[in-house]
Amino acid sequence: MADVLVKDGHVITMDSQRRILERGSVAIEGGKITAVGKDVEERADTVIDARGKVVLPGLINAHTHLSMTLLRGVVDDMPLMEWLETIWPIEKNLTAQDCYLGALLGCLEMIKSGTTCFADQYFFMEDVARAVEEAGLRAVLSRGIIELDDPKRRETTITEGERFVKTCHGMANGRILTMFGPHAAYTCSPECLMRVKELAKKYTVGVHTHIAETQEEVDKIIKKYGKRPVEHLDSINFLGPEVLAAHCIWLTEREIAVIQKQGVKPVHNPVSNMKTASGVAPVPEMLAAGIPVSLGTDGAASNNSLDMFSEMKFAALLSKAHKLDPIALPAQVVLEMATINGAIALGLQDKIGSLEVGKKADIVMVDMKKPHLAPLHNVISHLVYSAVGGDVDTVVVDGKVLMRERGVLTLDEVKVLEETQKAADDLLARREAAK
Amino acid sequence: MADVLVKDGHVITMDSQRRILERGSVAIEGGKITAVGKDVEERADTVIDARGKVVLPGLINAHTHLSMTLLRGVVDDMPLMEWLETIWPIEKNLTAQDCYLGALLGCLEMIKSGTTCFADQYFFMEDVARAVEEAGLRAVLSRGIIELDDPKRRETTITEGERFVKTCHGMANGRILTMFGPHAAYTCSPECLMRVKELAKKYTVGVHTHIAETQEEVDKIIKKYGKRPVEHLDSINFLGPEVLAAHCIWLTEREIAVIQKQGVKPVHNPVSNMKTASGVAPVPEMLAAGIPVSLGTDGAASNNSLDMFSEMKFAALLSKAHKLDPIALPAQVVLEMATINGAIALGLQDKIGSLEVGKKADIVMVDMKKPHLAPLHNVISHLVYSAVGGDVDTVVVDGKVLMRERGVLTLDEVKVLEETQKAADDLLARREAAK
Repeated sequence: MADVLVKDGHVITMDSQRRILERGSVAIEGGKITAVGKDVEERADTVIDARGKVVLPGLINAHTHLSMTLLRGVVDDMPLMEWLETIWPIEKNLTAQDCYLGALLGCLEMIKSGTTCFADQYFFMEDVARAVEEAGLRAVLSRGIIELDDPKRRETTITEGERFVKTCHGMANGRILTMFGPHAAYTCSPECLMRVKELAKKYTVGVHTHIAETQEEVDKIIKKYGKRPVEHLDSINFLGPEVLAAHCIWLTEREIAVIQKQGVKPVHNPVSNMKTASGVAPVPEMLAAGIPVSLGTDGAASNNSLDMFSEMKFAALLSKAHKLDPIALPAQVVLEMATINGAIALGLQDKIGSLEVGKKADIVMVDMKKPHLAPLHNVISHLVYSAVGGDVDTVVVDGKVLMRERGVLTLDEVKVLEETQKAADDLLARREAAK
Repeated sequence: MADVLVKDGHVITMDSQRRILERGSVAIEGGKITAVGKDVEERADTVIDARGKVVLPGLINAHTHLSMTLLRGVVDDMPLMEWLETIWPIEKNLTAQDCYLGALLGCLEMIKSGTTCFADQYFFMEDVARAVEEAGLRAVLSRGIIELDDPKRRETTITEGERFVKTCHGMANGRILTMFGPHAAYTCSPECLMRVKELAKKYTVGVHTHIAETQEEVDKIIKKYGKRPVEHLDSINFLGPEVLAAHCIWLTEREIAVIQKQGVKPVHNPVSNMKTASGVAPVPEMLAAGIPVSLGTDGAASNNSLDMFSEMKFAALLSKAHKLDPIALPAQVVLEMATINGAIALGLQDKIGSLEVGKKADIVMVDMKKPHLAPLHNVISHLVYSAVGGDVDTVVVDGKVLMRERGVLTLDEVKVLEETQKAADDLLARREAAK
């Protein structure tokens, strides 16, 4: 007997044939999908009626800084350097408890908007992991490693990064995995990056970094190393299929070819890139080169949302506007970026990203009986162009129901809101006091 | 005694000083605002507790084609001409009842996402007006006038446009106003446009048109008249403060100066423009020239949403990305575009667009107690960058409560969804049958 049966929904499998069942069911047992089909007649402990709902793989947010949810809306509409210079002094005051609470709030927002797995890079990651464990989400977490010409800082952050991998990889029944998180090629020396690369190899984990986010970054790298970012990273043998690379905006054709050849996994962050005016990533070009580009929200401080549905619409529209081509990035492809490509990016394509027998049961149900989702002609179009996170009705991760009819079962929503407001107020008061 | 008292909310007045009351109330009597302030102690028939909520002027969608909500998601990800060639045969089959139902669905979506007033251009407008009257919204409606080198079509649509103005202007206690709706300079001859201009003068109403949406349009006009669209329209004396001009994308500096000088009211439609890959309007440049640019969603067939909150985020981010300047269009300015500038665009700045004594009571309340709106540091930032239409809790138009705690009081939501789905299915079946 199945543990959970999601019954009679409009099932978007995202399997290799991209099968869509206008009426189908998904059976779950021991955290895994045991059946997907039209005539799944199993009995189950919990039967969830999915009529009038779309059933799809949980969305995967492949790049964020979850604890920064605590800083949502603190700084907007500023040039990037001014923005950073305002954020950094606040970040300096962040405590482990702040990062835990920020992550908890982020988890709550992700559950309520249909994200079941995310990749994060920040600090106090043991505390972030604790929040993820409580929330019931799946995550690939990394401790940010940053050098900034300070060997001591490099050593501290590498040590903490290694400790985090040793402590937390495989936590929470395997829901929590880890990576190493070297910040970027302009903040980490080649020596630092290669140390990290070796460590990642030693522990068989990935590497989460930022590449070519701004023109200034490209200029810096060229000035220092005589090469563009991707070329530089390739020349020191840093690149490989285990590298998760946020942004990837300022790429030449040759750099796209390197990314493809080395199997690097770029993450597109359209909202953050637009908001910070960093540029537009060559997403259609990368996809055309066979690169499985995934999608991320970046941190809520530069978005200011973790809603992957909104992110999908921005992604689809930004490439169209940028290329002056209305077919530059179709809805179907964007949904792939937010599901199966996210799984590939995190090296989890055998476990998540589609609704297939044997995969982990990470499933989202979207309630389509809403004025802004009517009439229903084309489900994929509605998911990408009309739906918002608030339309998600039910969320299952690792076979466990985290939200049902918008009620979150793992976290106390009111308490999280109260505690994070207090923590945020205290944090900003500390900044004021330090002035 | 007031009819309605909205009590103790975070009030964003959008008055000339842009006052924000962290705790304030709004009293309503006879459809108008009779008090706004910290110590409004009036008794009222209905008291709405606004604690934890933001109270702001109802959003104004300054350009849409409401009945096209029936076609949401029917055609996406196509080149513009192919898109039009797919939409047109479907539109040919639209009945008065289809347009009524499409408009009803659009009204429902607008109420549920905090839009209280909109400007529309389409056909079967008497039926659209009926839907607006039932829904309780405010609207400025126009019958599309189109010529396409067909004098008969010109005469029919002008006649219908005039009949519509005569019949419907001032309907529903003045909630429904009208304009003339010549489609565009590339689909209407100068003779047609000037006939319309005279009629608009005769009836003292505005003119709702499309200007410079695509490069192809500009090329066509240059080829035909030897001038760019705005120059052409200026040379025939068509332009003036009563002209509501959707899109205004392909403008030269000189054309922006003409728009400013003639008092033309441009409407920015970022989502539709991105989705159809038409280009990016020079919004910061127009605002810098003192032009009160407003905001619209365009029709749901090319958006695919009527959510003005989402539209605000797209507007703020698109200009930043386009100009590679993170301060190109700040949140505060975008909120002005969606409220007071919308009122100015429709010639209703004395009646709506801000919460001030003597203005019509068109008010929206947003529930801020949501994970994606937490923590609360900056209300304006949250409204533009984090909120979605679904966060709207209560909507008041003309002093009447249309929605309370997300329950729509004027329309039967379930019935509208059922009837529009059926109408849409029938419509597409008629297209299939005609093939």
